[in-house]
Amino acid sequence: MEIAAHLVAELLRRWPIARLATVRPDGAPHLVPIVFVEVDRLIWSPIDAKPKPDRTPVRVRNLRAEPRASLLLDAWEQDWSQLWWLRIDASATALSGAQLQTSDEYAEVRAALVRKYPQYGEIATFRSEPTLLRITPLRRASWCASPAALAALERSLRET
Amino acid sequence: MEIAAHLVAELLRRWPIARLATVRPDGAPHLVPIVFVEVDRLIWSPIDAKPKPDRTPVRVRNLRAEPRASLLLDAWEQDWSQLWWLRIDASATALSGAQLQTSDEYAEVRAALVRKYPQYGEIATFRSEPTLLRITPLRRASWCASPAALAALERSLRET
Repeated sequence: MEIAAHLVAELLRRWPIARLATVRPDGAPHLVPIVFVEVDRLIWSPIDAKPKPDRTPVRVRNLRAEPRASLLLDAWEQDWSQLWWLRIDASATALSGAQLQTSDEYAEVRAALVRKYPQYGEIATFRSEPTLLRITPLRRASWCASPAALAALERSLRET
Repeated sequence: MEIAAHLVAELLRRWPIARLATVRPDGAPHLVPIVFVEVDRLIWSPIDAKPKPDRTPVRVRNLRAEPRASLLLDAWEQDWSQLWWLRIDASATALSGAQLQTSDEYAEVRAALVRKYPQYGEIATFRSEPTLLRITPLRRASWCASPAALAALERSLRET
């Protein structure tokens, strides 16, 4: 069974982690875990400053050549009747700090990220101008093992 | 920092879930959560019987045209100094029940899956002949936020 629309909306608001798949210029898939927020139906994901600041992150290089991406939200459970997943097929662009400065959305996105992830108060990401991925959802698919799983997911999201 | 080789080996033995990225025939990435076992340096992942048994699963269709795949193991932690991930770039093939019957490895792989996932005792996957993905690791990358994260991961794997 699918995940109901109101629960999908809650997942995008509250779930802390997703896995992002992009495609490398040579056609092989690439995967990385990401944090994200949803603001006005767009999903935003910051790219942390890396020890090698001169190297463009792989996901950014990939998206320049192939903007199609896929996001997966799920959770492991020993009890397989509690399993669920939500997949968002999307188109994504990396926006640099300079591009974001001229964007109306940046202040709101930044505030939403800091609200969802208090961890950003402790690390350097937003002290300079981070690169953000702007992810436009195109299509979604979901699966849930049982009505009990949906009820449990709904409870856990309320407690978040 | 990277995850040490002996911990990578433990993760592949004990970690219960991975996310599998493949590439669709149209070039877009596709994502699905999987369970898996490692047997003799190959990773095996069963495909559960679906309500629509006449429809070939998307990951199987994708791998027929493009065998390159990527696997991601990670865990969400509120404390970001505890984060880690392990990515395995791989080549994967779907083997049908009939193909597996003539395979020397099938009995061992099946036993390893049932041992790692007692849940297979309760569901129908292995009552008939499931399709299995045979995943050949080609390259791995890993990241870990801190030495403390490695120590915590090592402890949690010992307790599994």
